Amino acid sequence: MNNDFKPYYAVIFTSTQNENIESYSKMADKMEALAKQQDGYLGIDSARDHVGITVSYWDSLDAIKNWKQQSEHLQAQQKGRTVWYSWYNVKICKVEREYEFTTSSPPISKH
Amino acid sequence: MNNDFKPYYAVIFTSTQNENIESYSKMADKMEALAKQQDGYLGIDSARDHVGITVSYWDSLDAIKNWKQQSEHLQAQQKGRTVWYSWYNVKICKVEREYEFTTSSPPISKH
Repeated sequence: MNNDFKPYYAVIFTSTQNENIESYSKMADKMEALAKQQDGYLGIDSARDHVGITVSYWDSLDAIKNWKQQSEHLQAQQKGRTVWYSWYNVKICKVEREYEFTTSSPPISKH
Repeated sequence: MNNDFKPYYAVIFTSTQNENIESYSKMADKMEALAKQQDGYLGIDSARDHVGITVSYWDSLDAIKNWKQQSEHLQAQQKGRTVWYSWYNVKICKVEREYEFTTSSPPISKH
């Protein structure tokens, strides 16, 4: 266990898409590129089959708030509601503990 | 905003798989069925493309601990490390806030 673990935040975004998803992936790529430029951005995980799950990681609640209000992201959120998504859910979470397994190199640990 | 929001917990499991994934989906289905029988289980979201993301939801840290130690789940974890996964990461999170959008019915809200 890592005793130096510093809590950070995760935003779990789950969604189902409408039939009409033209221009979606271009926007998704752009939003990911923009998010990476935000202060406090730590990373992202994303996968889609029946449901889409995108988890983004941030160093503070303020960083999440600032990204939510970023102007191009606001436009994408609006288009998400009118065009792309039939449903979505957003959960703001505090990551309290974390562990990892890998076969390619020893598990990450801080000392 | 929902002022009655009761915090709960999310376990974010991200993974990459080995080539050899025979018998994986059968195990994954069984583990999902078993998790649903655990006390404190609230739900699950799962998607996979380049990376797999499974987020399970629980009403307490004890519920997460009990599921981690469930006997058949322990066997699956062992097989995960030796056969299925080349890498995985587990994050234990407290869900502090949540909101939802849907076109099919009004957003869920409690009063």
